[in-house]
Amino acid sequence: MANLPPQERLRRFGAKNVLIRNLLAELFGTFTLCFVGLSIVVQFHIGKTKFTNWLGVNIGWGFAILFSVQSTLRISGGHLNPAVSLLMWSFGHIKFTWFILYSIAQTIGAFIAAAATYFYYIDSFDHYDKGIRSVLGPTGTGVCFCSYPQEYLGVLSPYIDQIVGTGALAFFLCVVIDERNGIPKVWHPTFFSFLLIMIGCAFGMNLGYPINPARDFGPRLFSYFIYGAGVFSSPYNMYFLAPIIGPFIGALLGGWLYFLTIGMQNPPVEGIRNTDIPYIDQVK
Amino acid sequence: MANLPPQERLRRFGAKNVLIRNLLAELFGTFTLCFVGLSIVVQFHIGKTKFTNWLGVNIGWGFAILFSVQSTLRISGGHLNPAVSLLMWSFGHIKFTWFILYSIAQTIGAFIAAAATYFYYIDSFDHYDKGIRSVLGPTGTGVCFCSYPQEYLGVLSPYIDQIVGTGALAFFLCVVIDERNGIPKVWHPTFFSFLLIMIGCAFGMNLGYPINPARDFGPRLFSYFIYGAGVFSSPYNMYFLAPIIGPFIGALLGGWLYFLTIGMQNPPVEGIRNTDIPYIDQVK
Amino acid sequence: MANLPPQERLRRFGAKNVLIRNLLAELFGTFTLCFVGLSIVVQFHIGKTKFTNWLGVNIGWGFAILFSVQSTLRISGGHLNPAVSLLMWSFGHIKFTWFILYSIAQTIGAFIAAAATYFYYIDSFDHYDKGIRSVLGPTGTGVCFCSYPQEYLGVLSPYIDQIVGTGALAFFLCVVIDERNGIPKVWHPTFFSFLLIMIGCAFGMNLGYPINPARDFGPRLFSYFIYGAGVFSSPYNMYFLAPIIGPFIGALLGGWLYFLTIGMQNPPVEGIRNTDIPYIDQVK
Amino acid sequence: MANLPPQERLRRFGAKNVLIRNLLAELFGTFTLCFVGLSIVVQFHIGKTKFTNWLGVNIGWGFAILFSVQSTLRISGGHLNPAVSLLMWSFGHIKFTWFILYSIAQTIGAFIAAAATYFYYIDSFDHYDKGIRSVLGPTGTGVCFCSYPQEYLGVLSPYIDQIVGTGALAFFLCVVIDERNGIPKVWHPTFFSFLLIMIGCAFGMNLGYPINPARDFGPRLFSYFIYGAGVFSSPYNMYFLAPIIGPFIGALLGGWLYFLTIGMQNPPVEGIRNTDIPYIDQVK
Repeated sequence: MANLPPQERLRRFGAKNVLIRNLLAELFGTFTLCFVGLSIVVQFHIGKTKFTNWLGVNIGWGFAILFSVQSTLRISGGHLNPAVSLLMWSFGHIKFTWFILYSIAQTIGAFIAAAATYFYYIDSFDHYDKGIRSVLGPTGTGVCFCSYPQEYLGVLSPYIDQIVGTGALAFFLCVVIDERNGIPKVWHPTFFSFLLIMIGCAFGMNLGYPINPARDFGPRLFSYFIYGAGVFSSPYNMYFLAPIIGPFIGALLGGWLYFLTIGMQNPPVEGIRNTDIPYIDQVK
Repeated sequence: MANLPPQERLRRFGAKNVLIRNLLAELFGTFTLCFVGLSIVVQFHIGKTKFTNWLGVNIGWGFAILFSVQSTLRISGGHLNPAVSLLMWSFGHIKFTWFILYSIAQTIGAFIAAAATYFYYIDSFDHYDKGIRSVLGPTGTGVCFCSYPQEYLGVLSPYIDQIVGTGALAFFLCVVIDERNGIPKVWHPTFFSFLLIMIGCAFGMNLGYPINPARDFGPRLFSYFIYGAGVFSSPYNMYFLAPIIGPFIGALLGGWLYFLTIGMQNPPVEGIRNTDIPYIDQVK
Repeated sequence: MANLPPQERLRRFGAKNVLIRNLLAELFGTFTLCFVGLSIVVQFHIGKTKFTNWLGVNIGWGFAILFSVQSTLRISGGHLNPAVSLLMWSFGHIKFTWFILYSIAQTIGAFIAAAATYFYYIDSFDHYDKGIRSVLGPTGTGVCFCSYPQEYLGVLSPYIDQIVGTGALAFFLCVVIDERNGIPKVWHPTFFSFLLIMIGCAFGMNLGYPINPARDFGPRLFSYFIYGAGVFSSPYNMYFLAPIIGPFIGALLGGWLYFLTIGMQNPPVEGIRNTDIPYIDQVK
Repeated sequence: MANLPPQERLRRFGAKNVLIRNLLAELFGTFTLCFVGLSIVVQFHIGKTKFTNWLGVNIGWGFAILFSVQSTLRISGGHLNPAVSLLMWSFGHIKFTWFILYSIAQTIGAFIAAAATYFYYIDSFDHYDKGIRSVLGPTGTGVCFCSYPQEYLGVLSPYIDQIVGTGALAFFLCVVIDERNGIPKVWHPTFFSFLLIMIGCAFGMNLGYPINPARDFGPRLFSYFIYGAGVFSSPYNMYFLAPIIGPFIGALLGGWLYFLTIGMQNPPVEGIRNTDIPYIDQVK
């Protein structure tokens, strides 16, 4: 033990309680995901094509998912998204109270990430809008924190958008984690990054693919302290519920749809027992 | 069994008949491929460079192939393309009647995907053309569903284009699945994604690389109900046959050309028996 | 044997003579590389940013390398480039006469690829220049076949450019194939694709990174039959020698520089004998 | 031995002293990283979007990291960055005197790389500014060598920028090298490339993400001989210290933050002893 390098000696101070350990992982993992991800959006929105394009946003977010999930996969399962946690609850991987607590930890992580991004890029904000913050409009920067719909969208469309986007996420996430497909667990986060890039290329035009209630609501709450109540009423009242409610519905629909359409037909693999369910050991 | 999570318990309800199982997989797999893929095209065409560029289209389609094939590879072989099914028939992997049924299932999947894409992005269509649908022209959106040739192409050129594009697909697909090249099967869909990206960069300018009769005809048929008979007569009568007939010819030419030029020279691998042909177990 | 699918039965007709087998592989491999690659260039040059950008060119060429090398790696070593063959001769992997014959086969493959690309995209050529072919100038298309330097380059600069570009290729190629780095052979072509993408991002501005005498001279020779002698005298006499001579010098310098600077220091791997040299079995 | 190919016979001349061997590797590895990387920046800055875009810069630098680290990983650990070396010292992988010597070797490598890039692209420099070199301004090219901040940044912001950017690098680098995450060492450089791409998409707008004291200071010193003292006083005195000091602080903060937040919670892996610390064998 004395020969261990110092960072390895830290391991003994890890949380003894599995739930607390997992909540810390979800909080920090969602923080890193959203800090990187929101910085990408700021660089895209304020940098205006000189410093990245939409494909760069997709690829950047994809790799933010890769590393944030990779860091927490073995601890908490690396959900980093309340909609994914809800799906995992429905799959019996975590208890319902865990789903609630995971969601809170994720939202806190995303809130702190919004603060970090704001102060990291504050000079750019000030330069862009001459210090006059507005949610929308020519120098509006609200979109740096959370989603606002295209102006031509109907009032139900954001819900459909989020159900479809998160549904695709959940559907293909199940393709990756279905043990019968034989993808080694160490590569799961890499495939998740490809998945996010694909979703950004296909389902990003309406709202900008939040598909994650914590990623949208946490930073929106933070931006309330910058922009005021407009973040909850722009472009109309109650819009902000769509990227919260939509993903929960979408994740359940998408994940179960995978098993009901394709996963159900997937033949067993020799040498893998039916009880070898990935992540199942996370349930106490 | 009682300890299995619910989604695993669903497995017992999978189709008992292998053919039905495979047809379901091809239908759903082609649905996911085309729903994601057509949404990418809409985002590219209507979003006009702000929300993706041509490279983003290539990468998005590549990953749509990755996940759609990954999900069905172990079930039906993950063809998702009648031209690939024809090639696999010529390789002895499936029976000719299966090829016919696969093709129908794939086309149905693509048809439903077109409907799903249309209703998902309907607000964007309405905003783009003020509700007046036209196949071609300044606010034309027919290309969101199926291919239309560059105006300067000769009447035979679309056939040559599809023979070459699908030929390249089939040729390099055989490079990937040739067991003697030793690519682990779990990575095949990833290499297919690289392959699609490459084809989009090289053979996309004439028609937009449909290279898949189901992907082109299924959505074209759906778009008939939106745009009327113009989808079959634009820009001239019988054009729509090119992306159906061309791919079938191209797939056979390309796949066999691989074996006749390079595959034939590929030395055997020690430890792999000549009879270990991938996918062969799909033949009943 | 009777149970083998037809394409497997073809294997018995593979060339019995190893040299002939390898030359066929080099010819066909360089054909596929250049047919895809030149089509990418046409799509970039004639399609003018709508149908791919410079990064798309880099990625497309990268994957063209991936699949073309993958298909021939186990047969001939997958050189597809006379400069690489020269380096492999210097490493003792092939005999000098083989290097000469490999180079001829590669150049023939590239020549045929230029013809195939030209006839594949002939409608686009005609539309672009109204049927009046010119090497350079506003509607010039000579660059679709082979390299022409930026007008501001000095007369020695193309040589330096090709020595550097091919040197980087050879240097990092040796990083990949150095058995002591432990990269599994099945992944080599994928790393080569990353390498090509990198070189296109760094060393593409002067000449467009031909870095392959066969890829430049074969299509240039074909384009002589389209454009006349201008392809050998544009923008000045003897330019065309630079992308032939430069790569040979660069490959030797770069490859040996790797071993003299870094490879020499690479500690041996336990369990790998010093005599386990990759590709060595190609020498009869 | 007589049967060994010539490049393998060179191995015996590798440096016998481990420190000298490692310093040579760090020098040459940082040279290749910066030669490729600076050439990418020149192509981006002088080529002006025709020859790559910001995403191309990110991807190019990512792969430059990949191959440069891959080549030196087994020799010196492949730091190629004094800030990473400092972090590795804090982890007990190298001695403090080694950290100092590594940093010097890396800076020398980056200095030589700047010279190589300059002479490689000198025609392009001359064409761009008509031979009148200036650090900043409309035809300024100082940014081809080292970072200069956005004009609107406050005086402390570059420090914060570099702490955050290098912090993210170090944090996620620890995700990759944490043995408990089980990423095979041969894939580490590939994940580093993804990481660099991500950082360029998120934290590149302020300074252009140098995040490496050797990469910034070495070429700045070289550019002093081209542009004069302005490289140390532009846009204001002492700016150049930010991309030196910031990364050192950031690397320590980021790396240790990983272990204090997430790594500490990472459960042990069966079959891996706590003492199997990667790279530990580099400590004499």
